[in-house]
Amino acid sequence: MLLDRIKKVNDIKKLDKEEYGALAEEIRQFLIQKISVTGGHLGSNLGAVELTMALHLALNLPEDKIIWDVGHQSYTHKLLTGRRAGFENLRQYGGMSGFPKRKESDCDAFDTGHSSTSISAGLGLVKARDIRGEKYTVVSVIGDGALTGGMAYEAMNNAAKLETNFIIILNDNNMSIAENVGGMSKYLNNIRTATGYLDLKKGILNALSGTPRGDNMVSRIRKAKSSFKQLVIPGMLFENMGLTYLGPVDGHDIEGLIQVIGEAKRVDGPVIIHAITQKGRGYGPAERHPARFHGAEPFDVETGLPLHPRKVSYTDIFSTVMCKLGQRDGRVVAITAAMPDGTGLKRFRNMYPERFFDVGIAEEHAVTFAAGLAAGGLRPIVAIYSSFLQRAYDQILHDVCLQNLPVIIAIDRAGLVGSDGETHQGIFDLSYLSSIPNLCVCAPKNKWELSDLLKFALEYERPIAVRYPRGEAYDGLGEYRQRVELGKAEWIFREKEIALFAVGSMVKTAVSVREKLKEAGHEASLINARFVKPLDGEAVEEACRTHRLIVSLEENVASGGMGERILECISERGLKADFLGISLPDTYVEHGNVEILKKAAGVDADSIVSRILARIEG
Amino acid sequence: MLLDRIKKVNDIKKLDKEEYGALAEEIRQFLIQKISVTGGHLGSNLGAVELTMALHLALNLPEDKIIWDVGHQSYTHKLLTGRRAGFENLRQYGGMSGFPKRKESDCDAFDTGHSSTSISAGLGLVKARDIRGEKYTVVSVIGDGALTGGMAYEAMNNAAKLETNFIIILNDNNMSIAENVGGMSKYLNNIRTATGYLDLKKGILNALSGTPRGDNMVSRIRKAKSSFKQLVIPGMLFENMGLTYLGPVDGHDIEGLIQVIGEAKRVDGPVIIHAITQKGRGYGPAERHPARFHGAEPFDVETGLPLHPRKVSYTDIFSTVMCKLGQRDGRVVAITAAMPDGTGLKRFRNMYPERFFDVGIAEEHAVTFAAGLAAGGLRPIVAIYSSFLQRAYDQILHDVCLQNLPVIIAIDRAGLVGSDGETHQGIFDLSYLSSIPNLCVCAPKNKWELSDLLKFALEYERPIAVRYPRGEAYDGLGEYRQRVELGKAEWIFREKEIALFAVGSMVKTAVSVREKLKEAGHEASLINARFVKPLDGEAVEEACRTHRLIVSLEENVASGGMGERILECISERGLKADFLGISLPDTYVEHGNVEILKKAAGVDADSIVSRILARIEG
Repeated sequence: MLLDRIKKVNDIKKLDKEEYGALAEEIRQFLIQKISVTGGHLGSNLGAVELTMALHLALNLPEDKIIWDVGHQSYTHKLLTGRRAGFENLRQYGGMSGFPKRKESDCDAFDTGHSSTSISAGLGLVKARDIRGEKYTVVSVIGDGALTGGMAYEAMNNAAKLETNFIIILNDNNMSIAENVGGMSKYLNNIRTATGYLDLKKGILNALSGTPRGDNMVSRIRKAKSSFKQLVIPGMLFENMGLTYLGPVDGHDIEGLIQVIGEAKRVDGPVIIHAITQKGRGYGPAERHPARFHGAEPFDVETGLPLHPRKVSYTDIFSTVMCKLGQRDGRVVAITAAMPDGTGLKRFRNMYPERFFDVGIAEEHAVTFAAGLAAGGLRPIVAIYSSFLQRAYDQILHDVCLQNLPVIIAIDRAGLVGSDGETHQGIFDLSYLSSIPNLCVCAPKNKWELSDLLKFALEYERPIAVRYPRGEAYDGLGEYRQRVELGKAEWIFREKEIALFAVGSMVKTAVSVREKLKEAGHEASLINARFVKPLDGEAVEEACRTHRLIVSLEENVASGGMGERILECISERGLKADFLGISLPDTYVEHGNVEILKKAAGVDADSIVSRILARIEG
Repeated sequence: MLLDRIKKVNDIKKLDKEEYGALAEEIRQFLIQKISVTGGHLGSNLGAVELTMALHLALNLPEDKIIWDVGHQSYTHKLLTGRRAGFENLRQYGGMSGFPKRKESDCDAFDTGHSSTSISAGLGLVKARDIRGEKYTVVSVIGDGALTGGMAYEAMNNAAKLETNFIIILNDNNMSIAENVGGMSKYLNNIRTATGYLDLKKGILNALSGTPRGDNMVSRIRKAKSSFKQLVIPGMLFENMGLTYLGPVDGHDIEGLIQVIGEAKRVDGPVIIHAITQKGRGYGPAERHPARFHGAEPFDVETGLPLHPRKVSYTDIFSTVMCKLGQRDGRVVAITAAMPDGTGLKRFRNMYPERFFDVGIAEEHAVTFAAGLAAGGLRPIVAIYSSFLQRAYDQILHDVCLQNLPVIIAIDRAGLVGSDGETHQGIFDLSYLSSIPNLCVCAPKNKWELSDLLKFALEYERPIAVRYPRGEAYDGLGEYRQRVELGKAEWIFREKEIALFAVGSMVKTAVSVREKLKEAGHEASLINARFVKPLDGEAVEEACRTHRLIVSLEENVASGGMGERILECISERGLKADFLGISLPDTYVEHGNVEILKKAAGVDADSIVSRILARIEG
């Protein structure tokens, strides 16, 4: 196997040109096999095999720097930089990350995970290089999906000032996770499909050259550089922004790519190489179902079908409730930032296409757009993953809540998400949302409560965020379904000694904690907080008066989370209570199975019981 | 006076066309006179007089909607909608806001303050209008400065899908607060200055028409719509994005503007009208010093000079220290998001132009660009106002702190800012920053400590945020200048009974609180927290052991602020202490004099003393 000869970075350069095609094929088969076992990002990686090989052949790593936008397409890069063995435990606890990590390799120039950061980071490296008088090449590789994010535009706008080399490769597969949307996407599509375009350009120049006035005109056009370019260059939008455009080029033609990267290296200034690629290339099921194979669970290579049956998730519940709300209330509109599948809005889109909006990877715009819809008399529901919603913090604060507009923020993937790791854990939202005035923040204990809270949110008519975790929806405690009231917690078990004050996913854990405490001879009440803001002060007060220990349980970092709010409540009301806060530590949490991560963080039932017992018996 | 005839919205329509020029002149004189007394945004308003008049003449308010991006250019709009009397107490406590406010008038369609939101909000209104089957015109007015913000691009990208009317007016004065920067700015400048451009286009068509092959070519060009447009339309960048471009038009020609707005209303789809205006128009000093007259303090109309002497501000101190740090360490680079003056980086720019970066109104890019610079071996200092830094929350968390990169965030305007009001108060940063792992968060008590903390930050070599308020730098407590150590508070007065644990600006207040308590017969220690994160747990513990009441003082909302961190520390260490948290309430704070706002919020010295006495004596 050719892959056996690639043991470290730059080993690829020892191959003959004739072997490139075979290596690409080996890499594809390797990725399909490995990802079918561990799960991971398949489509984007299959699409970037040749592009990555060309970069490794044309550049000199680790001196030269590649920044992978989003980073989930970096598997071939990992394979070519001595991390083949890492694929055995890809995205598993203690194993190799599915994203670039500086701590994993000196060939990973910048950590990524969220979209549209690579041009900004690359520009920083370029400027640092120049100021320090160093000479190396910096390449940011960004997808057409990521190009819908405003940061990418801010960075291109800034890059235009550069008079030094900087290469942006636009990896254009016409897809975000789902189909790409918007004006930029249409524009790129026009370039891709402009058959006869080159002919037309040549024709104009020939026509002009053939006449006396025309000859003069051609020379005037050549002088009037920008007008001339309008005719000759397909990527004029980028040229207008101040970037030199090279392309379009076939993103699966290694030698063509090497050549254009070489050209780009000779330009003094920012260059954008427009490479056309195919997501999922070389694996039928991924070519046909790009969204499903974007981030895949373990699957059968033969059929492409998942190996494990999918359980009903909170996303599924959300999906169903949204369709019902859409039917019941014509004012309900739904917004996603490029994730109709992941957020569960696909069914709503199919039922109410005119009330569904996919705005691209543009969380900032998504939220302020929702504010506009609300100001116009509708009831928008914006569904965004917790970690991506971080992008819209200012818009929630400044555009939605300041005007007290009835926007519902549906936060999927809140809490630990598992194998995507540090950049994707949704463990900060209770903190960053709770300090925003006018915003109500709540979380359901089980699948029925998600439905109840969404219905409540629609009636509430003010800004409200509902957070729920990735994965299987809890279907326990079905018999406890107290009517939802703003800022009211739900007492599930009323005993004494210990009060477990749990929110969202931690209610399920608390059930188990309570049973284990009982076995250890201790009684515990269980309160489902439901609302982190406004917090149910009366419930806290009652718990303090009738229990010797209040335990707060949340799947969020400690800082700014529910525990601190409970403490403040205890202090403000002048209550005396022993308090134990169970939350995630104030650190980033790596990738791995969620159960393992919980144990490591001390928020699994056993660890919590130990901590409670240590407190009351110690 | 013509202005006397404008008592309410649409009264302007009763004027004769011949009177428009005179009204514009009256409005200018009115604005100059009023703002010279109250202070306020002058330049942008003088530039938008005719544009606003044209909008009011061409539209039918309040049915039609205008969204003013940033909103500080809305004074003429306020004047034309019956709010003339409001200018007497513009931006003063209880008086008229300097920004659009839905609660002020039904002619204010959407509240603004931060940059680049208007296209998103406008698009929301447009979609709501269509879904509800209503008919009205929506116009977003955005400056060329605001167009450097990524949100505006995200919204334009999304708008391209529209097949219904939406008008964006690009109010292009070639300025952000300071000179506008970047590729988009250059592009707009090219359009503005394209003399001979129209001639060239005509020439090409004539040349082509004159020949047999050419005639055929012209017809082919006309068919190949996009290529043809490349030649004919100056705003091709916008056309490529999917917007219809109209312009450039003279933004001071009322009848021309009315005509082009009329044309725009007839287009089914998003239209961008490119209006060229002059910031500060009609007032010499504002035309000559646009940055100084962007947001002006009260000034002498004759000379344009400020009426009140400026005191040494924290911004001035920062400015001086930055120059020193730049001299001492060649790795120091400075970044601003379009505010070289406001942040005090102008002197650094003049001394070290190659190490200074104005990235445009692009806080997201600014922070990730800084992360890239740090990854490249430099020591970037990003200076951004507290409320604008909200835009970069995700970038701080995801790009800087996750990789533990040595980026210094200098946060000016932290705390209450006064007359700009709700959208600009910097009262959330302690909350949103404190929950970010790896980030150190600190604040100086006085001007010397700002210098000490910045020097410490440079040596620290990890992510750190230093926050300091708007306005005069405190020069008391000069004799207390204990060496800065990470996470160590500074004991200023050591007594017993009451421990005042104050951070940043509240140390000054605490000095006064302490004196008043002494007068009332109570002893109080004063601890300068310096670091909110990591918090000095030992100082908290010592304070708890030797005092009966711990009082936390911060100029930040309660939620997620220092008080909650102290409470958590008390709880974690199992300390017993009576605690009183002094902070801003969890609400938005309106505009007005900072001293008045502090009194209203109960964080002035007298209110604090009352609350402490009530606690210990009550």
